[in-house]
Amino acid sequence: MESTSPVIRIDADSATPVHRQISDAIRALLVSRALNPGELLPPVRRLAIDLAVHFNTVAEAYRTLAEEGWLDLRRRRGALVIERPTPETAHPEAEPKFAQRLQELVAAARADGIPPGVIARHLRRNAEGLEQWSSHGW
Amino acid sequence: MESTSPVIRIDADSATPVHRQISDAIRALLVSRALNPGELLPPVRRLAIDLAVHFNTVAEAYRTLAEEGWLDLRRRRGALVIERPTPETAHPEAEPKFAQRLQELVAAARADGIPPGVIARHLRRNAEGLEQWSSHGW
Repeated sequence: MESTSPVIRIDADSATPVHRQISDAIRALLVSRALNPGELLPPVRRLAIDLAVHFNTVAEAYRTLAEEGWLDLRRRRGALVIERPTPETAHPEAEPKFAQRLQELVAAARADGIPPGVIARHLRRNAEGLEQWSSHGW
Repeated sequence: MESTSPVIRIDADSATPVHRQISDAIRALLVSRALNPGELLPPVRRLAIDLAVHFNTVAEAYRTLAEEGWLDLRRRRGALVIERPTPETAHPEAEPKFAQRLQELVAAARADGIPPGVIARHLRRNAEGLEQWSSHGW
């Protein structure tokens, strides 16, 4: 079984810790099914070399995703993507937290000078993508 | 001149550093004009007490916002909100970075079990808000 090397972009200038950038990027690939159960992520040391980061940084990202139920780290060869049931009901805090983070992300984009119409287009495109999933019973 | 004490919610469980949570929250208030030029934010030590965090944490958040051009920290009494022109043209990396962070935020919300339709509603509501600003020439 070949391991899949995900495309991850590290932003060294970001205030977001690198391990978090890695786990966020891989989680997005998992949710969008660009990575599927049964696939292997590269071993920690290989991904660390590919991304030019310390292996502890990758190990921490993998641990975060394993704790969330996405990965099985018991294998020596890498990290196995496992089936993770989406929680049937979200934690009551999840929606207000999401709403706040979304508002902050939009505010930062506006402060960066991205035109409001461009930001709105990205938001609508994501909304449409979600509604397609919804209508397929996912 | 009275200083304004912004409402900021700290999430101790978040992987986002607390100084970043504070600067993100204040930036959202600045962009939305809930805080306006000429207003004073509370002195570092007072906000630190209100939020039950170390004063260095608040100081770092204020420094970040000052570097971005939102605050004038030369005053002893607090941090003065100043007029910050929105950049006329965004950095070429700004839009792809925003797109990626948005995708990751949506992925995390889905992984948390928030129904896709609910996520989509928040995205559309934010898009509509932006389009209202746009049509008023902001």
